[in-house]
Amino acid sequence: MAQRAHAAIVAVDWGTTSLRIWLMDDAGAVIAERRTAEGMETVGPLGFEGVLRARLADIGADASRGCPVVMCGMVGARQGWREAAYVDIPVDLARIADSAIAVPCGGMDVRIVPGLCRRDPRRPDVMRGEETQLLGMLADGQPSSGLVVMPGTHSKWVTLARGTVTDFRTVMTGEIYALLCRHSVLRHTIAGHHDVTPSADFADGVRAGLDEPARVLASVFAVRAGGLLFGRAGREAAAWLSGLLIGAEVGAALAPAADAEVTILGAGALAGLYGHAIAAAGRGARIRDGEAAARTGLREAARRLWPALPVKSAR
Amino acid sequence: MAQRAHAAIVAVDWGTTSLRIWLMDDAGAVIAERRTAEGMETVGPLGFEGVLRARLADIGADASRGCPVVMCGMVGARQGWREAAYVDIPVDLARIADSAIAVPCGGMDVRIVPGLCRRDPRRPDVMRGEETQLLGMLADGQPSSGLVVMPGTHSKWVTLARGTVTDFRTVMTGEIYALLCRHSVLRHTIAGHHDVTPSADFADGVRAGLDEPARVLASVFAVRAGGLLFGRAGREAAAWLSGLLIGAEVGAALAPAADAEVTILGAGALAGLYGHAIAAAGRGARIRDGEAAARTGLREAARRLWPALPVKSAR
Repeated sequence: MAQRAHAAIVAVDWGTTSLRIWLMDDAGAVIAERRTAEGMETVGPLGFEGVLRARLADIGADASRGCPVVMCGMVGARQGWREAAYVDIPVDLARIADSAIAVPCGGMDVRIVPGLCRRDPRRPDVMRGEETQLLGMLADGQPSSGLVVMPGTHSKWVTLARGTVTDFRTVMTGEIYALLCRHSVLRHTIAGHHDVTPSADFADGVRAGLDEPARVLASVFAVRAGGLLFGRAGREAAAWLSGLLIGAEVGAALAPAADAEVTILGAGALAGLYGHAIAAAGRGARIRDGEAAARTGLREAARRLWPALPVKSAR
Repeated sequence: MAQRAHAAIVAVDWGTTSLRIWLMDDAGAVIAERRTAEGMETVGPLGFEGVLRARLADIGADASRGCPVVMCGMVGARQGWREAAYVDIPVDLARIADSAIAVPCGGMDVRIVPGLCRRDPRRPDVMRGEETQLLGMLADGQPSSGLVVMPGTHSKWVTLARGTVTDFRTVMTGEIYALLCRHSVLRHTIAGHHDVTPSADFADGVRAGLDEPARVLASVFAVRAGGLLFGRAGREAAAWLSGLLIGAEVGAALAPAADAEVTILGAGALAGLYGHAIAAAGRGARIRDGEAAARTGLREAARRLWPALPVKSAR
């Protein structure tokens, strides 16, 4: 009860298929959290407001207490709770909270941090949620210039220059890997072994992808042919395919950024696989935790939104 | 009845999901044909031999007549009627029938032309059926050197040098296009409009693919972002995506073959789309009919298999 008495803000990362809520004290430390699978697409009959109130009640932070709520992610999409229009790049990350929108929510002060877009008809792109992770990464003292990759179903490769997002690209590597494993002719060869470790097969695939990123649509068929000619199948074939796709992604992304420092903002096995691929390309990369960055980014956004609040930077 | 009296051979192109049977006279002309969806994967309870006998009976060419039968395609796969082991490249197409296998079939003389393989652990590849189309294309007087693309669910790009297959690559463009349209996040934008015509959107996609073939895994997401930012959706988005994938395929395939003559061996709308993409790359290509080539190739294989048969080249 003592902890809850000090709650200063509610920070919410609300994605397509997941919801994470943190209650923070005035030093920016987490005093309670709640995670559910009630994402934008899976929010269910309670609706966004109902889910938010119910999950806050779960952690004893009932809405009447008056903590302001800052949110990021797909909750601000057109199909989300309320649309937070994309902010065009280039944009100084320190200022993105200035474009947050307010969500009417019966007495609660609820804001959504907007996503970013590259409004170029020849190469349009969008992100939602990652901008807040980037803001948090900078607040945690990471270099404010360089290349940041955020691995995931859709990876984001972001070019930063002194805290400003100057360019970014979304790469559908993870989704295409899953489609190939599950729905393509390669499924016969891979036979359900989708999980990948940084094995020798993965490294071979990375090398093939790095060598010929432009051939990736052709190279994927080597999984099928390798199964027929050499009996390579299952886990071995899946690892090679994952390596091929990540290698092609990394090769294409690093080629025009020869001098950039590279940060992997993510976690777990996938961040490790990207680390291996970047190393195979002869480059170094630091790995920073993506979820911690989201939390810190929401706290930074809150400080900007409500300057009178007693929320300090944890550093 | 007079026609059937002159039947000299039965030619069969037996693919994954389709069966085509031609009865040819001693001048190599087609005197009857039968097409069904009884492919390798869909052959049903009759089995391969049962289907062959039944379909021959349908066209009045009952097996007892004693015509030899020459087949190509997936019927010779491990999961087919009987496995016809791949022949390694480089291979002189004129000799592939020498590696045909005989299929025991109660009194009928049935042979299967083998597929080709590239038995390189670093870049393995296989084809089945296309080798026979190539043989037919050469017999029809096409140049025996150059680059041949055979568009399809899995395109084949074949390098020929004086009638010898020296290299080839399978590119899964068609299958990946279908997966992206039907199963990926892009399905929301494309909304069921899978058919593509060579529109301005297709041309824009081709240009994007030709410009950055190494970025194709990244560029596909522009379909989603273009829908969100510019309202590009449906037919327009599908055409752009198809152009992007075909453009990336064509760009990567043509780059190392700057001087090669290009032949498109195929038919219909898809051959036309490849023609547009190759023209956009500043190259010319002739289009030749793939099915006619398969038929001619089977006839050529028959002439090699049974030199005593009175089957002449139609030319």
